[in-house]
Amino acid sequence: MGFLPYHFLHPTFNNRSDEYGGSLENRSRLMRELITEMKSVAGDKAAIAVRISTDELLSFKSESSKSEAHEFFELNGELPDLWDIKLSKWSKECPSSRFSEPGHMEPYNGFVKQLTSKPVVGVGWFTSPDNMVSQINRGILDFVGSARASIADPFLPNKILEGKEDDIRECIGCNICASCYNQGIPVRCTQNPSMGEEWRRGWHPERIKPKSSDNSVLVIGGGPAGLEATLSLARRGYPVAIADSEKELGGRINKESILPGMSPYKRVTDYRVSQINQMDNVDIYLENKLNPDDVLKLGFDHVVTATGSVWQPSIMDEKTAPIAITKTNSILTPEDVLKGCELTSPVIIFDFDYYYMGGLLAEFIKDLGHEVTIITPFEKVSPWSFNSNEVTEIKLKLLEKGIKAITDHRIIEIEESSVRINHEVSNKQKDITRGSLVLVGNRKQNDSLYKSLKSNQEALKASGIKTLQNIGDSNAPGAVVHAVYAGHLYANTFDQEDGDSINEFKLEYPVIQ
Amino acid sequence: MGFLPYHFLHPTFNNRSDEYGGSLENRSRLMRELITEMKSVAGDKAAIAVRISTDELLSFKSESSKSEAHEFFELNGELPDLWDIKLSKWSKECPSSRFSEPGHMEPYNGFVKQLTSKPVVGVGWFTSPDNMVSQINRGILDFVGSARASIADPFLPNKILEGKEDDIRECIGCNICASCYNQGIPVRCTQNPSMGEEWRRGWHPERIKPKSSDNSVLVIGGGPAGLEATLSLARRGYPVAIADSEKELGGRINKESILPGMSPYKRVTDYRVSQINQMDNVDIYLENKLNPDDVLKLGFDHVVTATGSVWQPSIMDEKTAPIAITKTNSILTPEDVLKGCELTSPVIIFDFDYYYMGGLLAEFIKDLGHEVTIITPFEKVSPWSFNSNEVTEIKLKLLEKGIKAITDHRIIEIEESSVRINHEVSNKQKDITRGSLVLVGNRKQNDSLYKSLKSNQEALKASGIKTLQNIGDSNAPGAVVHAVYAGHLYANTFDQEDGDSINEFKLEYPVIQ
Repeated sequence: MGFLPYHFLHPTFNNRSDEYGGSLENRSRLMRELITEMKSVAGDKAAIAVRISTDELLSFKSESSKSEAHEFFELNGELPDLWDIKLSKWSKECPSSRFSEPGHMEPYNGFVKQLTSKPVVGVGWFTSPDNMVSQINRGILDFVGSARASIADPFLPNKILEGKEDDIRECIGCNICASCYNQGIPVRCTQNPSMGEEWRRGWHPERIKPKSSDNSVLVIGGGPAGLEATLSLARRGYPVAIADSEKELGGRINKESILPGMSPYKRVTDYRVSQINQMDNVDIYLENKLNPDDVLKLGFDHVVTATGSVWQPSIMDEKTAPIAITKTNSILTPEDVLKGCELTSPVIIFDFDYYYMGGLLAEFIKDLGHEVTIITPFEKVSPWSFNSNEVTEIKLKLLEKGIKAITDHRIIEIEESSVRINHEVSNKQKDITRGSLVLVGNRKQNDSLYKSLKSNQEALKASGIKTLQNIGDSNAPGAVVHAVYAGHLYANTFDQEDGDSINEFKLEYPVIQ
Repeated sequence: MGFLPYHFLHPTFNNRSDEYGGSLENRSRLMRELITEMKSVAGDKAAIAVRISTDELLSFKSESSKSEAHEFFELNGELPDLWDIKLSKWSKECPSSRFSEPGHMEPYNGFVKQLTSKPVVGVGWFTSPDNMVSQINRGILDFVGSARASIADPFLPNKILEGKEDDIRECIGCNICASCYNQGIPVRCTQNPSMGEEWRRGWHPERIKPKSSDNSVLVIGGGPAGLEATLSLARRGYPVAIADSEKELGGRINKESILPGMSPYKRVTDYRVSQINQMDNVDIYLENKLNPDDVLKLGFDHVVTATGSVWQPSIMDEKTAPIAITKTNSILTPEDVLKGCELTSPVIIFDFDYYYMGGLLAEFIKDLGHEVTIITPFEKVSPWSFNSNEVTEIKLKLLEKGIKAITDHRIIEIEESSVRINHEVSNKQKDITRGSLVLVGNRKQNDSLYKSLKSNQEALKASGIKTLQNIGDSNAPGAVVHAVYAGHLYANTFDQEDGDSINEFKLEYPVIQ
C-alpha cells in the first residue's frame, strides 16, 4: 500500500498533531481504518490484500520493537486477509540478475510471517522451483510472486504441476521486460520470444503450428538466433541440422557469460540445447566451419545463416564517421579480452556502445588486477542500462571497485602510450596515458558466408536450395533478445505459402471519437 | 539532402576509389546524378528542391575554393530549382532563444546565393517581419523558413500582408515545441495555446467563439495565466477586469526575463498587454492586492484566481520527503536573488528542479562577480532542458563561465558556513563551504485568496459570485506554457451550458485491424 496511507505512515511526511500523527499507532490509523472499512464492505465476498513497502519502516527505530516495520505488523498484522510485501523503489525490487540473487527480498519480507497469522506474498527474482520451494519451506512466504519468471515461461506453474521442471524456460534476469516498461514500449523477453506477440502475431509460448512440408533446413551458427531457429523449426517437425565452428553451441553467450554477474545468461543456451537434445529430428555438427561449397553440396532445401557479429577495433566521431587509427599497438576488442589476451596497465576502455559491454569489461579487467579507466562520450557508463534498472548499480560497482570513469569525452587520437581525448561540449583536449586500449562500440556482421552464397544465385539454384536467409547478429548486431526473436521469427514464419507473410502482423489503428 | 548522398559527399565516410570517391567532383557525382534524374522525370510538372547541410562542408578545406561548401555550389549550384540550407545537427539548427539570435544561420547559408542563380531557402529563428525582410533585402535568402514563428502565430504571413505586424504573436524561442518533438508527445506552444488543440478541442489560433451571456469576470493576477484568460475572455466579448498587486502586468515573466538570455520571454506579456490595451471591455487594476472581502464586494459574476506560486526555502530527500533546516542564515530562494538581495561568496546553489532556473541563477550570480557552485542530484544541470535543445549549451555556458557543477549529490544537512552533501549512488558524504545558499526545487501555490474565498461558500453565494476557479501556477506550479494554456482553457470553456464540458475533448482510440 503506497501513496496516501503510506505517507501517513512515514514520519518525515506526516507532521500531524492529531490522532493521525505522532506515534506509529497514530500514523497507521488511516491504514487501519481503510482496511477495516474495506473488510466490512467486502464481507465474505472478497478478501482484502494490503501491499506495503517495508524497507523504510525497517530503518526507522521503534521504542517497543525491533523497528517500526516490526511494530507495524505487531499492531496491524491480523487486519487484512493477505499481506503483499514490496520495496519503496521498483528498481531495487526488480534488479537485474547481474546485481541480485534469487530471494534477494528476504531481508525485507522474511520477518513478516513471524508477526502475523495471515498469509504473506512476496517477490524476489524467483526463477526456479527450487528457489520458490525454499522460501515456502523455510516459512518466509506463503505465496510466491514471480512476474519475470512467468514472462520467460508463462507455463511455469503447469510444468511444476506436471513434474516437467527440466522443461522450464528459466528467466535470465536481463530485465529486458523491465526495459520495455521503462521505455513505454510493448514487452519483450530474451528467453520467450512469443512474449508480446500473442495477439499481434498469434504466437504461443508453448505451441507452434506444425510443418507444412518435409523441407529440410540447415542452420549455420549455434548462438541465440541459430539455437532458437533450430528448436522452433524442430518443434514444428522439420528435419533440421545446426552447425557451429566452435566446440560448443552457444555463440556469444559462451563468451559473455564469463563476465561478472552474467552467468544466468547461459540459460539462453542451456534451455535450448537441452530441448534440442531430446528431439530426434535435429542433427548437431560442432567444430564445423562451413564454406560456401560445403553448404551448396549438403543438399538442404533451406539454409539460414546465424553467424553472429564481431567487435571492431575502430572508433567513430560524434557523427559516427570513422576516425583513422595509425598507432595500433595493444588495441583490443572485447573478444580479445574475453579470449584472455595479454593486458598492460593502465588499461583504457573507450566505450561508445550504450549497453553493458564497456562497464562489464571494466569490472572484469579490474578484477584481473589491472588499473582501469573507462572513457565514454555519454554522461554515464552504459546509459541504456537505465532501462534495465541497472545504471545506478553499474555506477556504484565502478565506484566500489575503484574504476575511474571519464564521461563526456571521446578519443580523437591514439598514440603508442597515450590517447588524446576531447570534451564533447567544451572541446577541451587532454592526453591520458595508456597501456592496453580496449575499443567497445562497433560490431560488424559475420556475413561473408551469407554474402558469398547470395552472390551466386545460379549455384544456389543448381544446389536445390530454395531459400537462403541471414538472421540475428550476422544480419543486424543487437542484444541477445533481438537474436532470439529473429530465430523465432524465422522458424515460426518458415515455409509459409505467401513469401511476404513474414512481415504480416496485426496492428492497432487510431480512430477518432 | 542528407543520408546516402551526403555520406558520399563526406570525405571521412567516403572511401571509394572509383568515380564516386576522391575529389569533391567525384564525391558529389551521386547527388548530381540524382538531381539530374529527378529533374528529367519531373520535367515541367514539378520543381526539384535539394536540402543540404553546409556546416561540415564549410570546415573542409578545398584546393580550388574557399571551402568544400563553396566548391560544391560552384560545381552544382545550378542543378536543382531550389536550395534549402540546413545544419547537420538539429539542436544547433533549432537552438532556444537563450542561446541564439535571429539570423544565427547566416554563417552557414549566407554564402550560397553568391554561388547560384537558383533561389535559396533557409531558417534561423526568424520571429519578426524585420528579421525576415533583412535577410531578403541583404541577399542572404530568397525564401524564409520559420517553423517556430508559425507555431506561435500561424497567421503571421496574413498579418504581414494585412499590415497588422503589431498583432503578431511573436515566438519567444523557448523551444517547448521542440521539447514535444523530443519527447514524442503532441505539440504545445507557450505563446499559442491553441497549438495542438485544433482538432482535439476545436481551438483556433485567431478565432474564438463569442460570449453566451453578459456575465462579468474578475481575473486576479496578471501573470501568463491571468493575461491569457483576460485576453481570450475579452475577445469572446465578456466584460473583464484584471487586477494585480504589482505596478506592472506580467507576473513571473517580469522577474525571470532579467536572467541571461531570457528577455524574449517578455513577449508573452507584451503581446497580451498590447492586445488588451486595444479592447474596451477590459479594466486593468494595478497595485491592487485584493483580500477576500474586496472580492466579495466587487460584484462580479465570476472570479478566477491566477495568483502564481513562490519558490520555497526548503529541501527534500530523494523520496521528496522534506529535510529539516536548522541553520537558516543566508538561505535564499530564486525570488530573493531576482529581487537583488545581498549575496555572499562562495554562493552555493542547490538545484533539485529539472528545468532552467538553477542554471540561469548560477550564470546570473556569477555575472554579478560571485564564486558559484551548483549542486544537483541529477547527472547534469537542468536535465529537462535536453528536451528544449538546451542542455549541451547550458553545460558549455557553465564551463565557460567557470561555474563549478557538482552532480549526483544532494544536500542532506545545512550548517552556518557549510553544507553536507551525499553522493546519490555511493552515499559518500563531504562538506562544502558556503556563503549564501540558494535553494531551487520547490514551488508552492499562492492560493490563500482562493482557499479563503472557497472555504466560505455562503458568502460567495450571497455576493452573487456564480463560479470561482483557480488556474495556472496558483493551482499547480509549472512552466509558462502550462500557465498560458490554463488561462486559455478557462476562457475558451467559460460559461458553457454543461459545467463538465471543460474536460470534453476528442480522443483517438485504438482499433484492431
